[in-house]
Amino acid sequence: MRAHVPGAEGAALQAADAGSQPGPEESKPEAAYHAFGCSIFPSSMAPAAERAGATLQREEWGNITYPLLFIQLNQLFSTPAGLEWRETARWIKFEEKVEDGGERWSAPHVPALPLHSLFQLRTCLQKGTVLLDLDAPNFKEIIGKTKSWSEPGAQLSKTPLKEQLRNRFKKKVPPGAEAAHIAVGEVEFLEQPFTAFIRLRQGVALGSLSEVALPSRFLFILLGPRAKAKAYYEVGRAMATLLTDEVFQRVAWQAEQREELIAGMEAFLDELTVLPPGKWDPSARIPPPSCLPSPHRRTTVHQPDGQSHGNGDIAAAGDRAGPRRAHSREELERTGRLFGGLLQDIRRKARWYGSDFSDGLHLQCLSAVLYIYLVTVTNAITFGGMLGDATANMQGVLESFLGTAFAGFVFCLFSGQPLTILSSTGPVLVFERLLFSFSQDYGLDYLEFRLWIGLWVAFFGVVLVATEASHLVRYFTRFTEEGFCALISLIFIYDSLKKMLSLADTFPINWQYRLDNVTSYSCICNLSSPGHGSTWNDTPLPSALAPWQPPAALAMLSRTQCLDQGGYLLGTSCQYVPDVTLFSFLLFGGTFLSCTVLKRFRSSRYFPVGVRKVVSDFAIILAILASCAVDAALGLETPKLLVPSELKPTNPARGWIIFPFGANPWWVCLVSTVPAVLVTILIFMDQQITAVILNRREYKLQKGAGFHLDLLCVSLLMVVTSITGLPWYVSATVISLAHMESLRKESTTSAPGEHPKFLGIREQRLTGLAVFILTGVSVFMAPVLKHIPMPVLYGVFLYMGVAALNSIQLTDRVRLLLMPAKHQPDLAYLRHVPLRRVHLFTIIQLLCLALLWVLKSTVAAIIFPVMLLALVGIRKGLERIFTLHDLSWLDSLLPETARKEAGGKQPREQEEESNSEESELMHRRGPEINVSVN
Amino acid sequence: MRAHVPGAEGAALQAADAGSQPGPEESKPEAAYHAFGCSIFPSSMAPAAERAGATLQREEWGNITYPLLFIQLNQLFSTPAGLEWRETARWIKFEEKVEDGGERWSAPHVPALPLHSLFQLRTCLQKGTVLLDLDAPNFKEIIGKTKSWSEPGAQLSKTPLKEQLRNRFKKKVPPGAEAAHIAVGEVEFLEQPFTAFIRLRQGVALGSLSEVALPSRFLFILLGPRAKAKAYYEVGRAMATLLTDEVFQRVAWQAEQREELIAGMEAFLDELTVLPPGKWDPSARIPPPSCLPSPHRRTTVHQPDGQSHGNGDIAAAGDRAGPRRAHSREELERTGRLFGGLLQDIRRKARWYGSDFSDGLHLQCLSAVLYIYLVTVTNAITFGGMLGDATANMQGVLESFLGTAFAGFVFCLFSGQPLTILSSTGPVLVFERLLFSFSQDYGLDYLEFRLWIGLWVAFFGVVLVATEASHLVRYFTRFTEEGFCALISLIFIYDSLKKMLSLADTFPINWQYRLDNVTSYSCICNLSSPGHGSTWNDTPLPSALAPWQPPAALAMLSRTQCLDQGGYLLGTSCQYVPDVTLFSFLLFGGTFLSCTVLKRFRSSRYFPVGVRKVVSDFAIILAILASCAVDAALGLETPKLLVPSELKPTNPARGWIIFPFGANPWWVCLVSTVPAVLVTILIFMDQQITAVILNRREYKLQKGAGFHLDLLCVSLLMVVTSITGLPWYVSATVISLAHMESLRKESTTSAPGEHPKFLGIREQRLTGLAVFILTGVSVFMAPVLKHIPMPVLYGVFLYMGVAALNSIQLTDRVRLLLMPAKHQPDLAYLRHVPLRRVHLFTIIQLLCLALLWVLKSTVAAIIFPVMLLALVGIRKGLERIFTLHDLSWLDSLLPETARKEAGGKQPREQEEESNSEESELMHRRGPEINVSVN
Repeated sequence: MRAHVPGAEGAALQAADAGSQPGPEESKPEAAYHAFGCSIFPSSMAPAAERAGATLQREEWGNITYPLLFIQLNQLFSTPAGLEWRETARWIKFEEKVEDGGERWSAPHVPALPLHSLFQLRTCLQKGTVLLDLDAPNFKEIIGKTKSWSEPGAQLSKTPLKEQLRNRFKKKVPPGAEAAHIAVGEVEFLEQPFTAFIRLRQGVALGSLSEVALPSRFLFILLGPRAKAKAYYEVGRAMATLLTDEVFQRVAWQAEQREELIAGMEAFLDELTVLPPGKWDPSARIPPPSCLPSPHRRTTVHQPDGQSHGNGDIAAAGDRAGPRRAHSREELERTGRLFGGLLQDIRRKARWYGSDFSDGLHLQCLSAVLYIYLVTVTNAITFGGMLGDATANMQGVLESFLGTAFAGFVFCLFSGQPLTILSSTGPVLVFERLLFSFSQDYGLDYLEFRLWIGLWVAFFGVVLVATEASHLVRYFTRFTEEGFCALISLIFIYDSLKKMLSLADTFPINWQYRLDNVTSYSCICNLSSPGHGSTWNDTPLPSALAPWQPPAALAMLSRTQCLDQGGYLLGTSCQYVPDVTLFSFLLFGGTFLSCTVLKRFRSSRYFPVGVRKVVSDFAIILAILASCAVDAALGLETPKLLVPSELKPTNPARGWIIFPFGANPWWVCLVSTVPAVLVTILIFMDQQITAVILNRREYKLQKGAGFHLDLLCVSLLMVVTSITGLPWYVSATVISLAHMESLRKESTTSAPGEHPKFLGIREQRLTGLAVFILTGVSVFMAPVLKHIPMPVLYGVFLYMGVAALNSIQLTDRVRLLLMPAKHQPDLAYLRHVPLRRVHLFTIIQLLCLALLWVLKSTVAAIIFPVMLLALVGIRKGLERIFTLHDLSWLDSLLPETARKEAGGKQPREQEEESNSEESELMHRRGPEINVSVN
Repeated sequence: MRAHVPGAEGAALQAADAGSQPGPEESKPEAAYHAFGCSIFPSSMAPAAERAGATLQREEWGNITYPLLFIQLNQLFSTPAGLEWRETARWIKFEEKVEDGGERWSAPHVPALPLHSLFQLRTCLQKGTVLLDLDAPNFKEIIGKTKSWSEPGAQLSKTPLKEQLRNRFKKKVPPGAEAAHIAVGEVEFLEQPFTAFIRLRQGVALGSLSEVALPSRFLFILLGPRAKAKAYYEVGRAMATLLTDEVFQRVAWQAEQREELIAGMEAFLDELTVLPPGKWDPSARIPPPSCLPSPHRRTTVHQPDGQSHGNGDIAAAGDRAGPRRAHSREELERTGRLFGGLLQDIRRKARWYGSDFSDGLHLQCLSAVLYIYLVTVTNAITFGGMLGDATANMQGVLESFLGTAFAGFVFCLFSGQPLTILSSTGPVLVFERLLFSFSQDYGLDYLEFRLWIGLWVAFFGVVLVATEASHLVRYFTRFTEEGFCALISLIFIYDSLKKMLSLADTFPINWQYRLDNVTSYSCICNLSSPGHGSTWNDTPLPSALAPWQPPAALAMLSRTQCLDQGGYLLGTSCQYVPDVTLFSFLLFGGTFLSCTVLKRFRSSRYFPVGVRKVVSDFAIILAILASCAVDAALGLETPKLLVPSELKPTNPARGWIIFPFGANPWWVCLVSTVPAVLVTILIFMDQQITAVILNRREYKLQKGAGFHLDLLCVSLLMVVTSITGLPWYVSATVISLAHMESLRKESTTSAPGEHPKFLGIREQRLTGLAVFILTGVSVFMAPVLKHIPMPVLYGVFLYMGVAALNSIQLTDRVRLLLMPAKHQPDLAYLRHVPLRRVHLFTIIQLLCLALLWVLKSTVAAIIFPVMLLALVGIRKGLERIFTLHDLSWLDSLLPETARKEAGGKQPREQEEESNSEESELMHRRGPEINVSVN
């Protein structure tokens, strides 16, 4: 596992590991004891604790691995047929109980014990029989070797019973596991309780006593006089819980005498968390927590017990939600050679190239392909339409289609991060619009001008790659990423809503429709007086209609026929379309809601996990299919997805190749450098911020990023798209995030109660390639695609925007603004940064976001790329307002700040170090033990 | 509080109390010890524990109450300005910490401690200074009397600091509370830790040391050498947690020597719940649980520690979700005298009559009135319309209005349970329909026939009241209630959906509308050939339209004018109404969703509690207003709520008084007894099941029910409504539940972290009276009400049906059918009843429900009332399939079963008793103590 953790965290883990391995000073017995607790009172060393420390020290942690223990508690019941052993609880990691009726396993839960029963267990270990490394072939002989009295006489068949139960559970127990048996019960012939702890030299199959056919290694027997079954049961539970403890397991495997066992138990006792009576209902079952302290932590000397405990402030935060370290990834380290970064990228990615294809063979990828394909096509059509509007169809829907398919395909094949989905993006669209109107104003040929700009941008891009400029992305901290990501997500949400509202213009609703006036609504084709058409259309009043009579023959002409024949439509219902808009809104809302609900279905309680997983993976496709089915069944003429089906430029005035000279004066090719610089900044920022977001550490990507390679690909594609007059493409944040989200891998749980872990993303090139191949052949799929209503796709867009917005911390912090302090969730940064600093940080981010939004929407759009750069500067300025400690929790530190602190540690590391110094000091005072336990 | 718990539970509580008071055998010191734990090993009695027991025994629990303790932890920090005490945590019941930044209080949480620090605290109490009943006027002197060294020199101003913080928190501390101060810190001059536990004889104000200006009673000081601040802090937390314990508080108040304190702490230790390391992250903060074991339980001898602990099976379930005891309420006890029950009802309710009016003066009631008024009016219109259809307008909307207003008003004024809302109900409607068609078929006068039936029903009703038949409702267990309530809720849901779908018939959508054919849609009034009207309407094809030309003048006639003049409408768009249906569905869905979301807003995290409470209380009204506003703003002609505005019978053929003789043969008055018996069963079941549901114990009604009085009111109202020909009224389950739900009282929390408790319902007559007065004057409010669209009200109906359905356990169990066992919630009955028995019970209930539904919808509807009675029989039959133990968890026991068991205990009581027997046995074995603690 350690090999997978890149950079700083890996180092931190190693440091933690180093602490757990016996260094020079830890080998002294007194130091060893420190792991178990540090008392505030000076006192002498207890021999038991010393031995426990010795037991743990004897072996090197991590070198010897013992088999997993399956622990089972059997209770002796008296039935009419005699005494009978019955399983009443079991443990692998968490506890499961047989419920009252005897037919049901409880949900796994944290085993909460009465302290009392632990103390009694200790007495059992102190006073009872302890047999270590016993040789016995079966249960009868074990009992024979242990006790002085005769067997209670419970029936023990050697053949397995209740096979169904066993078989179903066996899946959960990994091969090689061994069993521990706890047997408790009341018998009549005993006056005093009898207890025995037995470790067998060889695992022994106990037949029907065990639920799963595993060799048994440990046995704990507690038999006593009548009328205390409950108490015996609790002691049995305490023993089982003790045996589930990883530290005690090692002691139990290794112990050579009773004292070591007891010392191991003392160590366990010392680390207990207790809940006071009256504040906690002891019968409440605590569900397994989703994150647990690592066992490494517990054996580390640098984290003594007194500190890691007690709703601790610092110790536990590290693992859970500690602030991210500064970007110091190997991908971004400067080689200092020309194209050095690029070569490293290629070298790193080449290794994975084969697996990039083999890893894509999974059912989940099919769902991802369908989902992202539909999104990409919709996006291509949307942006194609808007580009067509902005450039008088010099770039239209067909160009958008071809460009997306070509650029996306090439990028997926050669890029460093093939999970990225290329697309036209909002900022580029804004720039194209400005460029086109500039060309119009100054009589320049737009496509030729654009070709030169594209070539220059590609050149600058290659220069940036050569000079390893991508290492600057280390300055893109969470602050910058979130600002950009929120902007793009908001644009998605805004656009989908705007598109829906514009439907009300395309298909206007007659809000003034009165049922009683049904006779006054009509629409007739008028061919006779085309000159008055506009006048009529402006005054479509019922009163104006009366004196006029249409020629009978014309009533038969449809709207298209009428307009084709030069007529115009006349009447009160011509400009209205009934039902379509409202039905579109129903489809839109329905799709959005079903996407949300189906996606969340994974964490619902209904149906088995497998079903839920499939439904959740295919949520978007299912939602689209359902909405399409509803639309098709009702048959209303909603606007549909129409893809071009002919391969010719949208504007007949242009060809497929743009020539560099001819239409514009020669100096244009030089002047183009000025806009090219702006576009380069834009492309660089747009591309790299998205790349940083996609390569975030929390996605646990294994194959590494390729910032330089990606930028090179984008630059070279600029050359091709400029020459062919296709749109320019960069990474699309929201779609790429949706792509990654649809490729999540989660572990299938092993021990009951353990939460599935996020394992990473299916990193491969197949899904991307398939998406863009499908996009390319969409021209031939027009007959199928035309059944998909646009409102459904806008609903999906809205879902994507909302999902992307919800994934960033900024959104959480905005929510905090509305919450009274006492209802706020227990977030790590809230524990460490004062609330008003958090709010201030949020508000500054919101202001930046608002500024970006305004810039994007106004004529100042041309300086938008510069503003993106300015975000980095603003982030730098924040260091004057916030302390580095606050920033390290709310954001990451900028590289040079981190270096400045390097004298050297970061604020938080410093803090941690001072803690460990503190604990060092405490150790130096001399060995001290817990006074209370005898 | 005990006075409020009626019947069996009260007795159980009292029994628990009795156990805590020193009985004859508990006064022996050994018995006293049993409260603290019972060991499985025989050993001698520890003197410390004995004394702790004695301390607790000395006073009688509940007689002396001590002031609430506010506990504050101050830590000594070294600042540039010198040493400074800073508050870092506080407790009333749960723990609140000052977060890292020093400016934020954490959310209240269960104080989880390391066991280690508790052991260290014990050492502190054993070895440190203990001063009980110290006399000192201020902190300086306290320190002076305690220590041998000089004061650390921290700044202590006597004037209060940080006033804002104090003022805001002071509200949470009830008057008369006292403070306990924990002061921990490192000082340079000490070599050994110094600890002191001080109880002051008089509360002393400590000035700026305390956050809230309360007299301080307890002080715990822990000062020690440097570098162990964390450990000191944890010991301080342990002390604070110990002081929050109610049992230890008593010890601390009473203790006369150190040993008693230590013994009290041992008792505390013995009751701890522990969480094992590695299974639980000690830094996780556990939110306060919503239900806690009562302190009574902890001091009871009958519940020894070993049993109540450890995710226990039986002990804890009693309080939380134990099965309800059989109905043995005083309201339903048989007096054996004629009208005895009625007289008791009147006597019981008369007491509360004054408060029934004064208790209604609360803002929440306003919201309830508006909500229930709108629901009642909608219901009256809906049922009025349906009754009108069923009876050829012999009873129409106006009759429904007047009847509802009159009957409801009278019932609210005189009934036993004024929270009930009377209404026409589904079963009665079905009966009226059958009666009317019977009258038609046999040529009888419907209203006269009905009058006689009504009079007979009233007579039978009075007989039932006289014979105290209402005590039979004790046989209506959860099984019967849930079947009936689910049926009524489903009818609500079904009706609201059906009404919405019928809109599509009233305002048909042209699903085949094609934008291109806009010219072919028209609708024209044809006056010329009325004879062919039907032919034209049947074939409204565009081709049929062409050869025909409308006279120009007629195009101006509106639909109404045209139909009035004997014309008919002709054309392709005549039968369609654009947009209205779809918009209605948007309003319907929007209202339902906003009701749900706004109602849930109470438990959201946003905005302060006050705002959330108001929004949640007014949720329905807000949703209705918002939907009306949207509807009004857009101006579409949606169907509106139209109340009659003239006071005359809907059918002109009838008058306001029905005469008993005249139209029908004389023997009809005798024959009427036959249907009257059926109606009596129906009315009795309908009325009483609803009454049982409304008077459920979980609503914590204080003023008691009045089953007999209610039935009398309903019977007498039958006389009036039969004579005036108004509809018959009984209690309406769903509306009454909504009424009660809108009148919930919840406690405002006192200690931070405590959950608000459900306190009961605002029981009063004002809301009901206001609702029905408003209903009565609605005829004059027609201009206002006509702005409310019907789809909005149907949305509210849907919400009510869903809310009522969600409130019953049957729904939970149906959900269980879909859940894999391991994902099921930890419900009490699932712990005790095997899953397949639970499923079987659910499926039987569902079958009964299906049968009821089929009966209600078919011609067999006449035997529906008998079928309701049969539910009780089926419930009786269930005793052959299920064990009494299972039934006691899934349902309540029937009275005679409970009596049969009375030899005598119920299964669960038996079980509990056997437990206590068991523990008794354990006690008799002789005193045993926990060996481990020294």
